[in-house]
Amino acid sequence: MMISNDIEQLISMLSRLPGLGPRSARRAALSLLRQPEARMLPLAHLMERAATSVRTCSLCGNLDTIDPCHICTDSTRDGGLVCVVETVGDLWALERAGVHRGVYQVLGGTLSALAGLGPEDLNVSSLLDRIAEGGVREVILALGATVEGATTAHWLQEKLASTGVVVSRVGHGVPMGGALDVLDDGTLAAALIARRAL
Amino acid sequence: MMISNDIEQLISMLSRLPGLGPRSARRAALSLLRQPEARMLPLAHLMERAATSVRTCSLCGNLDTIDPCHICTDSTRDGGLVCVVETVGDLWALERAGVHRGVYQVLGGTLSALAGLGPEDLNVSSLLDRIAEGGVREVILALGATVEGATTAHWLQEKLASTGVVVSRVGHGVPMGGALDVLDDGTLAAALIARRAL
Repeated sequence: MMISNDIEQLISMLSRLPGLGPRSARRAALSLLRQPEARMLPLAHLMERAATSVRTCSLCGNLDTIDPCHICTDSTRDGGLVCVVETVGDLWALERAGVHRGVYQVLGGTLSALAGLGPEDLNVSSLLDRIAEGGVREVILALGATVEGATTAHWLQEKLASTGVVVSRVGHGVPMGGALDVLDDGTLAAALIARRAL
Repeated sequence: MMISNDIEQLISMLSRLPGLGPRSARRAALSLLRQPEARMLPLAHLMERAATSVRTCSLCGNLDTIDPCHICTDSTRDGGLVCVVETVGDLWALERAGVHRGVYQVLGGTLSALAGLGPEDLNVSSLLDRIAEGGVREVILALGATVEGATTAHWLQEKLASTGVVVSRVGHGVPMGGALDVLDDGTLAAALIARRAL
């Protein structure tokens, strides 16, 4: 191909982003190259700034420009209610929903033999520290309803059993707005088990 | 949302790339933020370099780090055979296929009343210059088989009629590997008209 190295490299790096295949990476590169001043440079500068300014919160594992993060330092939030999530993306999803008024603990993954992730790879020590310091009443496990999520939830529950804090998990069932006939058997079974009297 | 401004902005800028919605922009941002040194900084630096190094070829409208571009300056290519395409993306597609041994003319769009694009918005003057200088034998119109593409092809054909160069267009028909029953009526009609004796 008679394409300059810089463009070739740009396409190749963009195509490694999740959600972008080679085809959409080419379209994205072209759209950036068409507006170098208006779009590519601002994005480049923002990435450069974010790469140095964004750090991992030492308390909860969230990504933010300050450490501890905005959530951990927000005095209006309930520090006694810790929601355990797998990734920062899950934290973002809960924040967008605006349904959790407490703080978070981002594990950074789940126990997974396949991915070679053991207990030592998960960010839990800062949660145990927070519990040991007192003030944590309840830990809500908001992990994925997958084998890995369930394994991790079970392991965390055992680990927290001796601490005396209440450990709960988010409910499983039919998603709001979801039709039953497209759901898998596991979800339907979970929804039946989680039935409530009206 | 309790997300830092830098991260919020990064997601918003990424989500404006074609092919990335808000959801995949968040995943892309997260994947970059997880590897600031290994992935985000290199991409930022590459974008910064490309934004200043990549320019539009004054001969054909291609994007390259040199002007005239690699294709126009390649003495092994046939400068007498000019393939007219709408966008640099189309040029890339033809180069990937490796089917054109001549040079290109990138219009930068098509005539479109809807998009407010008139003849003065298309990059044709450098093509007319090249033809006037002599040496161009044939102009192949490789424009999209759309209303805009056909309008633009017709307009170009008229414009080039007096120059004496041969004007051709790419063939229309059944794509290779394509099944007939998924094709639209227009393509099927074009394929029948373009039939060849065996």
